[in-house]
Amino acid sequence: MPFAIGVDVGGTRIKAGVVDEQGRVHARRTLDTQADRGPDAVLDRIAGLVGELSREAKSAPAGVGIGVPGAVDAPRGIVRAPPNLPGWDEVFLGPRIAEMSRLPAFVDNDANAAALGEQRGGAGRGVSDMVMITLGTGVGGGIVLGGKLFRGWFGTAGELGHTIIEPGGRACGCGQRGCLEAYASAANIARQVVESIRAGEPSRCADALAQRGALDAKDVAAAAAAGDALAARIWDNACRYLAVACVNVQHMLNPRRIVLAGGLIAAGAQLLDPIRRHFQDMTWPAVDDKPEIRLAELGDDAGLVGAASLVWTK
Amino acid sequence: MPFAIGVDVGGTRIKAGVVDEQGRVHARRTLDTQADRGPDAVLDRIAGLVGELSREAKSAPAGVGIGVPGAVDAPRGIVRAPPNLPGWDEVFLGPRIAEMSRLPAFVDNDANAAALGEQRGGAGRGVSDMVMITLGTGVGGGIVLGGKLFRGWFGTAGELGHTIIEPGGRACGCGQRGCLEAYASAANIARQVVESIRAGEPSRCADALAQRGALDAKDVAAAAAAGDALAARIWDNACRYLAVACVNVQHMLNPRRIVLAGGLIAAGAQLLDPIRRHFQDMTWPAVDDKPEIRLAELGDDAGLVGAASLVWTK
Repeated sequence: MPFAIGVDVGGTRIKAGVVDEQGRVHARRTLDTQADRGPDAVLDRIAGLVGELSREAKSAPAGVGIGVPGAVDAPRGIVRAPPNLPGWDEVFLGPRIAEMSRLPAFVDNDANAAALGEQRGGAGRGVSDMVMITLGTGVGGGIVLGGKLFRGWFGTAGELGHTIIEPGGRACGCGQRGCLEAYASAANIARQVVESIRAGEPSRCADALAQRGALDAKDVAAAAAAGDALAARIWDNACRYLAVACVNVQHMLNPRRIVLAGGLIAAGAQLLDPIRRHFQDMTWPAVDDKPEIRLAELGDDAGLVGAASLVWTK
Repeated sequence: MPFAIGVDVGGTRIKAGVVDEQGRVHARRTLDTQADRGPDAVLDRIAGLVGELSREAKSAPAGVGIGVPGAVDAPRGIVRAPPNLPGWDEVFLGPRIAEMSRLPAFVDNDANAAALGEQRGGAGRGVSDMVMITLGTGVGGGIVLGGKLFRGWFGTAGELGHTIIEPGGRACGCGQRGCLEAYASAANIARQVVESIRAGEPSRCADALAQRGALDAKDVAAAAAAGDALAARIWDNACRYLAVACVNVQHMLNPRRIVLAGGLIAAGAQLLDPIRRHFQDMTWPAVDDKPEIRLAELGDDAGLVGAASLVWTK
């Protein structure tokens, strides 16, 4: 059976695996990244993992796919200054791993790789057009059209978090106002609750804030589930804006499926149900062109599976 | 030189022409549609035009492309109940014209065809990814990716007018609230001025409204240019929401170019300049991934050129 090697390079750990065309993982390895030792050392560790997994497999792999955090020139396999990999100002990751491993090598950023992974082997399985919205500290995204990543002319397609859903609204870290991310990222969900508590609004999160000096989205989800009015309002508002983004994706790209991913989906139905409800309330009734909205299924494996899928879709 | 025949079927007139691969029109014919005589008569007239143009050309055409108003099943060439063509409940336009003309025939809706026309021979020339926003009675759109129309799973991709840019905002004819179309279509620009006048706001449009019982977007543009505060505010607000849509297109699809088309672009710089200014004010400063925003160039020919281009891109 044809297979590829997928490598998911994070700031802390490198995960690698043998993945088939259906997105199934047949073997895996993990190493500490040791990012502080610089790019050459990390490249050696990647090449070492690829060598180990190749020798273990029953036939020669079709290639190596690598996902890295941050900005990537995917067509040329060049990594540019990822925030979590110090010293990687311009690393020719694709060409160098190809040379070291004697295999075709493909590189993309980890968000794009994860979107492709879900489309090949997760919540997007069976559909060729899928949009993924990744809800973590920020709000990212990835677009798969015709079974391939769609990147745009500058490589920034799929930046769903910075579509404007409230003109003139909350300031976003990107310099815009009213971005989806300013309302619906894990960091900004927590921040809105903190702001309201500091403005004098009562909340059962106030004690945790006083003790720890900070809140996270899990605190907000727990308080909302326990009936806290402030937490429930901020959480529901984030879901409503996510539903606006889903309506906008529907009308712009009309994909078969929208997949929600990232740390926030640990909330499960507490996240998905209100998004689906707001979406149904807001989208047009006339045309039966709605996307399905689902949670990602691959968890930590999405990056690995997606990286390997870069080999099949190039 | 290879060429195709493009046919633009409107409720009133059928325009047809001989178009080359660069989108240049070498010959053209126009006939009244006579839509009231029903689909068979219209098909005869289309086939007649195709025959005339074929005989006139120096070599055999590569095929026929046809743009029609309303919903089209493009892959199968079926037209479904276009509002301006009575009796066309389900017409197998593509297969029937192919049989009558003995040429490969392709069908799409006129908005998609116009977008493709601008990309081949107009304001999108030289770029492979382009989004068109059509500003007429409604707000439509078309998406060209990799030099081909992108339609989505249900064929409704590019419905830019129904992306939500003001959640909970003005009611739209589609059943949603806060759609771009509710603020920025020609009909809704005029309607907002009428509503404000009826609510007691002074405007130099009040006389025209009293005399004619209605206003159109041209009245609003003229009054705004002459310094009328209400007209200027509504016009600028429409431009601002169009700029929001451009930011959202930028972050979702990152196309090289956004092209504005439709009747409203007769306003020229009065439309384009404020949209560009609001866009620059609102979009993120950090990444140099901005699209160019331009006015369409082909005018009435866009539908014809785009229809012919369906032949090259299938």
